[in-house]
Amino acid sequence: MPFAEAAAHGELVFNCTNGAASLEALSAAGAGNLGGKVLVDVANVLDFSQGRPPAVGVSNDDSLGEQIQRAFPEARVVKTLNTVNANVMVDPNVVPGEHDIFISGNDDEAKAQVAGLLQSFGWPADRILDLGDISAARGQEMYVALWLGLMGTAGGSAFNIHVVR
Amino acid sequence: MPFAEAAAHGELVFNCTNGAASLEALSAAGAGNLGGKVLVDVANVLDFSQGRPPAVGVSNDDSLGEQIQRAFPEARVVKTLNTVNANVMVDPNVVPGEHDIFISGNDDEAKAQVAGLLQSFGWPADRILDLGDISAARGQEMYVALWLGLMGTAGGSAFNIHVVR
Repeated sequence: MPFAEAAAHGELVFNCTNGAASLEALSAAGAGNLGGKVLVDVANVLDFSQGRPPAVGVSNDDSLGEQIQRAFPEARVVKTLNTVNANVMVDPNVVPGEHDIFISGNDDEAKAQVAGLLQSFGWPADRILDLGDISAARGQEMYVALWLGLMGTAGGSAFNIHVVR
Repeated sequence: MPFAEAAAHGELVFNCTNGAASLEALSAAGAGNLGGKVLVDVANVLDFSQGRPPAVGVSNDDSLGEQIQRAFPEARVVKTLNTVNANVMVDPNVVPGEHDIFISGNDDEAKAQVAGLLQSFGWPADRILDLGDISAARGQEMYVALWLGLMGTAGGSAFNIHVVR
């Protein structure tokens, strides 16, 4: 579904808040305003309390995506885009060649809507990799630890990974 | 340095044990037998206590690679190969096209030796990405959570990632 159309119907909510504050921010938005809507979660919980590089604040047996889905069970949470920098999210062509974006969530229809939105951003359909239900957000979010290391060696944040089979 | 030559000199030790038992296994090998040697750590700590998929047993503020380096300060620990399946480790050509392997450690000479070994396995020099000191093992090991998700969607373990810039 085109972004403009979906947005006009009020069906899409983006969580682009600091991951450490996302639950509070979404609570302030109001559970009643989120019910039934597709909630696209692009956030990462980065814990700088022990310095840099930050730790992934929620990991292994949980993820921010799952926390949001549990806190707002009527929302249709889709985790995506958190594995790339903001400029790559909305324009994958800033990174040359083939590279991939991940998607996870419990609602197949919601994932299909978000996949359509990603395609409108320029992500090819065959490079949108569905990892399964929202528990797959653990892998998407924990990857950010490697992303931080790659950012150091890459000398910038305009990069991404391509899954080769 | 060719593998056969290095092995003949007793300079290389591979830790291919179950990551949850690696410290115990290396202790059984004896700290005195590890001192000064390049210790190639390819292990992952996978915690199946909460079922599948397993959690990464050491993460965020530590890694198995760092634990091994701390426990055996005289060893020259190099973390590598833990991000691919065993058959890909020793023959990267089982995955078609360009894809990358990561390396980290505190000893640049040790990393150079291991990079040479990886090249003898078929890894191109420009696809061996040095992430820095051994603390970068956190990212290498936490990536395995995403690897597990990708294995599910890929329908097998013969895959890898390519960093695109």
